This record gives sequence, structure tokens and C-alpha cells, in this order.
Amino acid sequence: MVETIEWTPAGVVMIDQTRLPLHEEYVTCRTYEEVAAAIRTMVIRGAPAIGVAAAMGVALGVAHAAGGDAGDLDAQVEQICDTLARTRPTAVNLFWAIDRMRKLYQSLRGRPLAEIRERLAAEAQLIRLEDIAINQAIGRHGADLVPDGKTVLTHCNAGALATAGYGTALGVIRAAVEAGKKVDVFADETRPFLQGARLTVWELQQDHIPATLITDNMAGHFLKSGRIGCVVVGADRIAANGDVANKIGTYSVAVLAKENGVPFFVAAPISTLDLTLASGDLIPIERRPDAEVTHVFGHAVAPEGTMVENPAFDVTPNRYVTAIITERGVARAPYTESLRVMAS
Amino acid sequence: MVETIEWTPAGVVMIDQTRLPLHEEYVTCRTYEEVAAAIRTMVIRGAPAIGVAAAMGVALGVAHAAGGDAGDLDAQVEQICDTLARTRPTAVNLFWAIDRMRKLYQSLRGRPLAEIRERLAAEAQLIRLEDIAINQAIGRHGADLVPDGKTVLTHCNAGALATAGYGTALGVIRAAVEAGKKVDVFADETRPFLQGARLTVWELQQDHIPATLITDNMAGHFLKSGRIGCVVVGADRIAANGDVANKIGTYSVAVLAKENGVPFFVAAPISTLDLTLASGDLIPIERRPDAEVTHVFGHAVAPEGTMVENPAFDVTPNRYVTAIITERGVARAPYTESLRVMAS
Repeated sequence: MVETIEWTPAGVVMIDQTRLPLHEEYVTCRTYEEVAAAIRTMVIRGAPAIGVAAAMGVALGVAHAAGGDAGDLDAQVEQICDTLARTRPTAVNLFWAIDRMRKLYQSLRGRPLAEIRERLAAEAQLIRLEDIAINQAIGRHGADLVPDGKTVLTHCNAGALATAGYGTALGVIRAAVEAGKKVDVFADETRPFLQGARLTVWELQQDHIPATLITDNMAGHFLKSGRIGCVVVGADRIAANGDVANKIGTYSVAVLAKENGVPFFVAAPISTLDLTLASGDLIPIERRPDAEVTHVFGHAVAPEGTMVENPAFDVTPNRYVTAIITERGVARAPYTESLRVMAS
Repeated sequence: MVETIEWTPAGVVMIDQTRLPLHEEYVTCRTYEEVAAAIRTMVIRGAPAIGVAAAMGVALGVAHAAGGDAGDLDAQVEQICDTLARTRPTAVNLFWAIDRMRKLYQSLRGRPLAEIRERLAAEAQLIRLEDIAINQAIGRHGADLVPDGKTVLTHCNAGALATAGYGTALGVIRAAVEAGKKVDVFADETRPFLQGARLTVWELQQDHIPATLITDNMAGHFLKSGRIGCVVVGADRIAANGDVANKIGTYSVAVLAKENGVPFFVAAPISTLDLTLASGDLIPIERRPDAEVTHVFGHAVAPEGTMVENPAFDVTPNRYVTAIITERGVARAPYTESLRVMAS
């Protein structure tokens, strides 16, 4: 399996997810601004993966920060963190990772710059390794929930490419397959950015897990057909009450799953929880550029001057969520209680 | 407004709906085989429009049929009708139109060939004109149902391009606007063939009705948001119990509308009713080529060798349908009763 993101002497290396699956190319971000640009333009995407990217961005920024008095370094670190935080608003893992790096920096103030740099770089690499271990734990907890001999439906890409490795939703599927379950996957193509068609199908092909591509509007038809055993998706932010912000279209899949008696599972690390928000109504929803909708790979699919809405995420109310699978176990309703306990 | 389909001395002229909206091109079908190919490849699509096309195809076939004894002409007519009937399986208007033409032919057997040709050509043109009048009547009946000052959501293209003119679902919207209602339209792009992005948005722009393009997976999000006043879609076949086969994704929109208390209307001519089928489970669902899903305008959006499902239609159970708007009025549940009365 290719690596989603790595810390190297040359900089932060990422597989370019805007070019997959037709081109397997890597980009090297040599400055924190380049990391920020890579997050904004979705060279790297997926809540856990952009958390790792932001942490590495902070470490990279400090690696290149000018030496001098601590006050000046403080200001530079704030500038670095601000720039990385202004890339994408919805996934809370981004802010969680930046906060973790900022707090570590604050604990190191006054120490030699070389030591600060080394510690921040080590922390960013630790966040990456932790994320892989977390996803494997999510997989172990989730594998039991996947019905044997049926199809798993997933939306967007919550796989190795959306994380440091193994994946959240696809981690659950991988763990189910490793446990000997006979499952295949239906992947929603996930317009407008086509993460399902471009990334999920590609990832599953690498792992020889049978994957069938459908357009987003087919999911309901197949949920009604009886062949789907469960839905597993990732999350970009989960409010204290269990409302889930995830890729646009997730809400629709959740409603259609419930309507047809199919379990709907969310797989996400604890760092995706935002217990400061009482409900999902408070989660900021990113609006992406019109051209993502009006064009596919640069080819216009709509007339000139077409008006567009392009919310990148939606919020699935907790009543549609059968369970939330984290590295610490499986949370069920009432989520305000179960998530609080799980996070503590 | 451009014409969807016309009978001309040179042949049957259609606007090429595979080329819209970037190219406004017309094709002239000079043989019934060319009409059949145009239906199969979706140069013309939309249940009422392919009904008109099939009728014109029969007339065109007979116009070129070899003269001679009646038995031979009978065989040729059967060959023509069979070829046209084997183009697409789901929309019943196709079979309705062919049956109407076949019955007229049978009533004319033994008459001079020139007269038969003239009568069949006149009948096909009559079906076209009737369709426009039917759509205007559907619009009149439906306009009252459209909430003022809200957004109407539609799926696929059930507009002038899907009919001989004016449209079914878009006819209801046009009539609401003509009645002075302030409405705008959200158009699902309707993957894989993008009828919403390519055709619905284009049509509404021509009529200066404000239209906003969304991807199919955004419909649920906006139905939840409160801005959608009603959904109006067309239909390809309606069973005796009111189950509706329509473009893939319609079922999902219907479930999401009901879940959010938004009325879901189906606009279709009586010729879309198939009272021989007790329920929608019996409606044959066309499977279209994989490449429609894996490619957009020839550009691959998925890895080589991707497995695909591509059902072109789904069935919306009658319990999600608020009303069915026909040229004879508005049918409501229980549909087995109301549709039987309306069709008789």
C-alpha cells in the first residue's frame, strides 16, 4: 500500500489525491505554506489525514522559523498555526492536531531552538503513527458489527488515503475481511470530488477487496434491494449529541439506511469528537468552489453561467446513527452520555 | 424554445441531447433504424419524447416499406415495431405509442399504400401535438400544488426536451411561474447521464426561470434545510397501485422528501400508466453500459477494471408519492382506485 503522508528530510511528502487514480504522483511540501495549500486544494483530504498534515505543517514551519528571542518565535508559531487552521473549516481533527502541536510548543518555550524543532517533528510523526494504530483499533471494534456474506455500502473515502493508513470506515471493512468475513463493497462515487470513484475503488482494488462503483443516487435503490448488510462511513466532526458532519450525501444515505432497516455505522477516532458543540447544527459547513460541480476534470457538464450550491459536508442527526465506532469501543445512543464517557 | 423532435420531409429531426448544452446540434433520422438507434443511444430521451419518436419511427418505416401484397407489408410493419420496441425497456410510453400506430395500421389494411403512409405520418404528428397539449394541461393542474415563494426540487429532465414540448415536471413549474408564483428551481445533476446539469438547467435558462445546479447527494441536505417547497419529477412507468418508475435516484429523493415533510409530486401523461402491472416490482429496469458510470465525457473517473452497477431507473413505492398529476387532473392515494378512475 502506498503511504498517504510521510515526514522526510526533503519535506512533507504526500500522494497527490487530486491525480488519483489515473496518475500516482507524489508532491513534496517544503514549507508550511505549501502544506496549507495542499490541504486547501485537497491534494490531501480526509479528517484524520489533514490532522496529520497540519501537525507536520507546524513542525515544518518551526523547522524553518527564524531564530532569536522567544517572543518572535511565539509570533511565528502563531502565524504558522493560523495559516494551517484557515485551510478548511469542518474537520475538527485539523484544529485538534494544531492545538496539540501548539500546546507542546508552549511547554517547550525557552528551550534551545534545535530541541524545539526536534520535539515538534517527533510529535508530528507520532501523531501519524498513533493514527494508524487508532484505525487498526477502530477496525477491531467495528469488524464484529459487519454482517457476514453481505455488501457493505460506503460513501466518500474514509480509507488509508483519508488517514495516515488503514482507514476508519475502510479499516472496519479491512478488519472484517481479515477476520474471515465474506463481504464486498459498494462505493458511492461521491460527487462532486469523486472520492469514491477515484480513491475508495482504487484502495480496495489494491487490497483485492471486491468493490463495485455506483453513482450516489443509486445508493437508495440498493439499500431497498436487501443486498446491503450495513453502511460504514467516516466523519469530519461529531457533536456532543452524536450528530455527525461528514461528506455531502452522508445524511441522505443515513436516512435511506434507516428507512430500509440497514444499520448505519460511523467510524472515527476520538479526535473527531467536538464535545464543545451541543449539536451538529453548530458545525461550520465548508462551501467549495462552483467549478467542482460545473466541471469534471476540466470538462463543463453544465451551461455557462450556471448557478451552483456546493456544500462540502452535511450533518446527519444522531437518530439515524446506529453506532459510532472509535478506537476505545462502540458508542450507542444516547450519545451525549456514551460519547462523554468514551472521551474522558 | 428549440423543438425536441419534428417530422420533416427529410426525415425525423431531433436535437441531439447527448451533445447539449455545449453543442446545439440536430440529427436527421432518415430510416426507422436510425430512429431506433437515436432512442437507444439517448440522442432523444424522456418517456413522452421517445413515445413520439417511436411513433414517427413507425411512420418513417412504413414510408419506406416496399409495396406489394398486404402480408408482406404486415411483416414489414411488425419488423419496424419490433425494432423500435427493443430500444429501451422501462418507459411504457414507447410501447403505448407503437401499439397506437400498429392498431391504426391494422385498421387501414387493404387500403392503398400511399394512404396508409399518409395516415400513419399524420398520426405520429398528432401524437406529438397531443403531447404538447397534454403537458400544458398537466401544468395547469399542477401549478396550484406548487408552494409560492419557495424552491422546487426536480430530478433528471422531465422538461420540453423529455417530451414534444413544455414538459411534464418542468411544465408544472412553467405553469406555476406563468400563474405568477415566485419560485426557483434546484436541479439534481442526475448522474450518470447528467440530464439535470446538461438539460434541465439549460432549458430553464432559456425560459429565464432561476435554476441552481446541485449534485444528487445534496438533495437530502437541502430538503432538510426547509427551503424546498415541493419536489416535482416525471415518470417512465406508473403501475396500477401508483408505484412510480423514474430515473435512478428518484426513490431516494422521495424518501428524503417524506422524511422532511416536503410534498413529492409526479407529473406524467395518462400514457405513462401501466394498469396491467399490479405493482412497481413488475416494471422492467434497464441496465445501461458501465462506461456511463466510469467515464464522464470520455474521461475516466475510476480505475481501469472497475466493477459497476448501472440501473437507469428505480421504483418509488406509492406511499412516498403525495400526488400524481396528469392531464385529466390530480390523483391521490389510494392510487389503485384513483388511477383506475382517471384512466377510464
